[in-house]
Amino acid sequence: MSLPLPGPMSLVPFVSVETMMRIVLEQGVERILVDLAAYIEEDFLRWEQFDKTPRVAAHSPEGVIELMPASDGRSYGFKYVNGHPRNIRTGRQTVTAFGVLADVETGYPVLLTEMTILTALRTAATSAVVAKHLAPKGAKVMAMIGNGAQSEFQCLAFKAICGIDTVRLYDIDGKATEKAARNLAGKGLTVVPCASAEQAIEGAQIITTCTADKQYATILGDNMVGSGVHINAIGGDCPGKTELHRDILARSEIFVEYPPQTRIEGEIQQLAPDHPVTEIWQVMAGKAPGRRDGTQITLFDSVGFATEDFSALRYLRDILASRQDLQMLDLLADPDDPRDLFGMIERYGKAVEAA
Amino acid sequence: MSLPLPGPMSLVPFVSVETMMRIVLEQGVERILVDLAAYIEEDFLRWEQFDKTPRVAAHSPEGVIELMPASDGRSYGFKYVNGHPRNIRTGRQTVTAFGVLADVETGYPVLLTEMTILTALRTAATSAVVAKHLAPKGAKVMAMIGNGAQSEFQCLAFKAICGIDTVRLYDIDGKATEKAARNLAGKGLTVVPCASAEQAIEGAQIITTCTADKQYATILGDNMVGSGVHINAIGGDCPGKTELHRDILARSEIFVEYPPQTRIEGEIQQLAPDHPVTEIWQVMAGKAPGRRDGTQITLFDSVGFATEDFSALRYLRDILASRQDLQMLDLLADPDDPRDLFGMIERYGKAVEAA
Repeated sequence: MSLPLPGPMSLVPFVSVETMMRIVLEQGVERILVDLAAYIEEDFLRWEQFDKTPRVAAHSPEGVIELMPASDGRSYGFKYVNGHPRNIRTGRQTVTAFGVLADVETGYPVLLTEMTILTALRTAATSAVVAKHLAPKGAKVMAMIGNGAQSEFQCLAFKAICGIDTVRLYDIDGKATEKAARNLAGKGLTVVPCASAEQAIEGAQIITTCTADKQYATILGDNMVGSGVHINAIGGDCPGKTELHRDILARSEIFVEYPPQTRIEGEIQQLAPDHPVTEIWQVMAGKAPGRRDGTQITLFDSVGFATEDFSALRYLRDILASRQDLQMLDLLADPDDPRDLFGMIERYGKAVEAA
Repeated sequence: MSLPLPGPMSLVPFVSVETMMRIVLEQGVERILVDLAAYIEEDFLRWEQFDKTPRVAAHSPEGVIELMPASDGRSYGFKYVNGHPRNIRTGRQTVTAFGVLADVETGYPVLLTEMTILTALRTAATSAVVAKHLAPKGAKVMAMIGNGAQSEFQCLAFKAICGIDTVRLYDIDGKATEKAARNLAGKGLTVVPCASAEQAIEGAQIITTCTADKQYATILGDNMVGSGVHINAIGGDCPGKTELHRDILARSEIFVEYPPQTRIEGEIQQLAPDHPVTEIWQVMAGKAPGRRDGTQITLFDSVGFATEDFSALRYLRDILASRQDLQMLDLLADPDDPRDLFGMIERYGKAVEAA
C-alpha cells in the first residue's frame, strides 16, 4: 500500500531563488523591469480599488521585520521583508523577502515566492516609472549614490524606462562602486565611478540615493542640490532612517506613495505632519500635476508600498501560467472531508503502518 | 561545470503537511497538546515582553485573510490564516494557515511551516490551558457544540489537560457529529452524540462552542446556560460573527486574550467598548482572580492571538532541532558578496550556459 499523495488543493507553486534567477535570465533584466513597471503603473491607476494599510513593522535595535499586505478584492498579496543594515558583516543580505499571492474568494495561497530578487526589481521599476512622470525632459545622466544590492537594478530601470544613458556611481565603500561598475559594463550605459557624492551629482538630472544606515544621515547636503533635478530617494524607509538634509525637502515638491506610511518612514518624517505632499498615483492618473517646469526640484520620497509588491506578485503569477517546471509545496491540509482534519492524520498514520 | 548550489544561508527548513502529520503521529496528539499548552502558558506568563498588535485582517464578502505577527525580541513569528465558511462547499478547509519563525537579530526566517494542523492543535491547547484556570473544580463533562475540523482536538485537549472524561457532541449537521464520534472512539473518552444543543449541555460543566458561520448567530440562548459552568467560545472570531446570546455575556465573568483584538472580533463586540473584561495572562500570573466560586459563569471569549501561534512555532522549532529529514527551501538569496545580488544572477547564468 502506498502513502496517500498530497491532494491537489494542498499544493502551492513555489518560486525558489534559483527559479527566480532562471526567470530573470530568460526574460532579461530590462524586459522584466519594463513589464513590471507596466503592472505597477496599472495598479497605481486603480489605487482606489485597493485595500491599503501601512506595513506592520516590528522594530529592534538591529533592524526591522515588516509585513506588507494589499488586496484588490480579487487577489490578496503580502510580503515579508526585513531590513538589517548590519547583516552585511555576517555575509547576509540587508534586505531579504518572500511573499504570497492568494485568492480572496477562498483565502487559499496560489503562489509562494522568494522576493529578495523580485523586490530589487520592483523597487527599481517603481523608481523609474515614477521618474517618467517627474524627471526633467530629456534627462540622460543619473547619479547613483549608494552602490549596494539595489544599485544595478536602479541604473538599468532608468535606462530601460526613462532613457538614461549615463550613470555616475558613488559609495562610501569604493569596493561597492567597483562591483556596480563591473556588473554594469557592457549593458549599454556609460558608467562613471566617482570619488565623492559631490562629484557624482555633477551634470546629473536625476539623483538616486540608496544607502542603508538605520540612522539619520545626510547623504545629500542642501548646497549640493541645484534647481531642475529629480531626486529619487529610496534609502530612507524607517523611522529614524533618512538620507536628505531637511532643507532640501523644504525646496522640493514632494511626491509619495501612501502618505500614512511615508509620514512615519520616509524623508518627510523630518517635516511637520501636515507638510504638503502629492500622492504619486494622482500624478499618473492626471489628477495632480507632476513636474511643472525645468527649474523645480522634484523629490520622490519612496519607502516602498505593498501595492508595488502586489503588482510584482501579479506579474509573476501571469508569467508563471505557462511554466511546467515549478516546485509544488505541500503547504495546505486537504482532507477528503474538509471537516475531517483529525481523521486525515489518523488515516495517514494507518497508511504509513501498512506501507 | 555544475550549477552553483544554493548557499547555506539561502535555505529555510520547511514543515509540509505530510511532515506535520508525521510529527503528530510520532509525538501523539495528547502529548503535543500538553507540551504546546506548556509553551503557550509560558508565553502568557511573559506577556509584557511581547511586541503585540491586533491581527491585520482583509475582509471580503466570502471571508477574511489575516496576518498575525508577534515578537519576543529574540524571535519573530507570524501566521497567515484565512477564514472562509463557504469553502466547505468546494471541498476546501474553512481555515488554512501557514507561518514563519524568524530570527530578530538578522531578520532571516528560520522555519516555514504548514499551520492548518498546528493551528488546530494550538487552539485546542489554548482553550484547555485557560480552562485549567477557569473551569469549575472536578469538571468531567464537556459539551462540544460544532463538530467540525477543530472539535476532536478540543475534546482531546480537555481530556489531556483538564481531566475531562465525557464529551457530549452536537452539530446542526449530524454527519459532522458522526465523524467526530468515530474519530474519538477508543481515545479514552465517553462520547455522547446529541440531537440538540440543549441535550448536549445537559450535565456539562464546560461548554465549548466552535461553529463557523460568518454572521451573528445564537448557538447558546440565555435560558440554556445555568450557573457554575465555564463557556469556551472559540467560533466567534470576526466582526459580525458571534455565537452567544448577549444576555449570557451580561451574566458572565469574561476573560479574553488581547482586548484590542477581542473588542473587534470576539463575543464582546456585542457589548459596550468599556465592558469589563479580564486578560487571561493576568489570571495565569496571579495578578487577577480566575473563577471565584462554583456558581459563577466564566466565559473565555477566545479569538486566537498571535502569541499562541508564536508559542506553537517556538515549540515546533524546538522539537525539529533533532530532526534530519526536513525539506530545505531555497527561499533567501545568498550571494557570496551580500551587496552583489545582481552579479549572483549573472554568474548563475554563466554557470547554466557552461553546464
